[in-house]
Amino acid sequence: MITSTSNAKVKELLNLQKKAKLRNEKKVFVVEGLRMFSETPRERIVQVYLSESFHSKKGKQLNLSGLTVEILSDTVFSYVSDTKSPQGILCIVKQNDYIIEDVMKAERAHILMLENLQDPGNMGTIMRTAEGAGVTGILMSRDTVDIYNPKVVRSTMGSIYRIPFLYVEDFLAAAKVVKAAGIRIFAAHLDGKDTYDRQDYLGGTAFLIGNEGNGLTPEAAEAADTWIRIPMHGKVESLNAAIASAILMYEVCRQRGE
Amino acid sequence: MITSTSNAKVKELLNLQKKAKLRNEKKVFVVEGLRMFSETPRERIVQVYLSESFHSKKGKQLNLSGLTVEILSDTVFSYVSDTKSPQGILCIVKQNDYIIEDVMKAERAHILMLENLQDPGNMGTIMRTAEGAGVTGILMSRDTVDIYNPKVVRSTMGSIYRIPFLYVEDFLAAAKVVKAAGIRIFAAHLDGKDTYDRQDYLGGTAFLIGNEGNGLTPEAAEAADTWIRIPMHGKVESLNAAIASAILMYEVCRQRGE
Repeated sequence: MITSTSNAKVKELLNLQKKAKLRNEKKVFVVEGLRMFSETPRERIVQVYLSESFHSKKGKQLNLSGLTVEILSDTVFSYVSDTKSPQGILCIVKQNDYIIEDVMKAERAHILMLENLQDPGNMGTIMRTAEGAGVTGILMSRDTVDIYNPKVVRSTMGSIYRIPFLYVEDFLAAAKVVKAAGIRIFAAHLDGKDTYDRQDYLGGTAFLIGNEGNGLTPEAAEAADTWIRIPMHGKVESLNAAIASAILMYEVCRQRGE
Repeated sequence: MITSTSNAKVKELLNLQKKAKLRNEKKVFVVEGLRMFSETPRERIVQVYLSESFHSKKGKQLNLSGLTVEILSDTVFSYVSDTKSPQGILCIVKQNDYIIEDVMKAERAHILMLENLQDPGNMGTIMRTAEGAGVTGILMSRDTVDIYNPKVVRSTMGSIYRIPFLYVEDFLAAAKVVKAAGIRIFAAHLDGKDTYDRQDYLGGTAFLIGNEGNGLTPEAAEAADTWIRIPMHGKVESLNAAIASAILMYEVCRQRGE
């Protein structure tokens, strides 16, 4: 059992929770809690950490065969946990390794293209909703919040394992690849002439969604085939990015009868 | 200028931020920031507090005529603020005083009935989206999160001033009143037979939305005319309450061509 916060493994674990750079170098991320443990494909689990009390109370009920398990004292576990009331189980998990073809391979594409989204809660909720709406892949600009951020991972509720996604260095170049595949790009834009429900999403469809405060950059908006807007009553100037995405994604479902 | 955190006004301000009971006794709530100040109807502002540095830098640009203004030292202002980086302006504002007829008075009702929603961010986002979707009123069960909670107020982005809402002691009795007014009640329910987009929302419509973790109580679900569900692909078991509400509310807009 590890009882010291200056243990090398503990230090690395804490850094993996906090530093996107280290996560990307090591190509791993950290997931916490029983729910996420059970959602994680076993072959991707690099290491399991249990708190001492979790291990003594519930360790025997878990199937940990074939996994490398380490016990941490409760104090050390709290120290490395990203949650206020840790359940007592966390894992280091291999990152996904998708290429753009994975994101676009579906017969009838339904893609999200996220530019510079910053709120971890929004990002996780978008991914969870996207799975529910049958989205086939997600492309993100390099400056979008790290999907392996512990808060994002938690709020995806496991969808992170089931939807192909990719950060792209050159967002505009990726838009060209998407277009070249015959997928139509719709930008959610306050200046869109047509409302979102007047367009046809039966063919391959991608939605461009911009930053929470600033919307899409002019360059990204230019890359779209069509600008669409969500009508807003009252004095509302914009909708939350996760809400706007959900309305668009579920309109695709509705039209496709999915 | 008030420079002590033990000043009686400062103590009351802090209590108003933290305690729903005191807010409801005094029939006021606290709003923070320039945006919320400008959204607030002036006749409802009881008192304005400015931080010393806000007052010296920006105080003259604000129209504060007719308002009671008090200056707080920056330290005291931070002490009473609910935000990490306070802008330096907050107001005590009179609560709304709606009755159920206000919530139902629209010619073509579009109502949300929220049962025991608990997440302040969800609640604020729902209210903001509701205004955008043209919702005509919101009814809430007594155990729903306090709408005057500072986090809710902030995330409504001003919608709190523009949508009639009411907490009801007896949620089932309120459902009867809604039905008696010829408004159809649809419960968002995982066991709904029909998907939400197969129903007609051209007439008066109310949506019953349940608690984030547990959904609707059986009694509330029983009170609905129809159960509807939002289709979910993949392994998603439920959608976030604000997301589910948004999909339903915008389907009403779509059908009504609003």
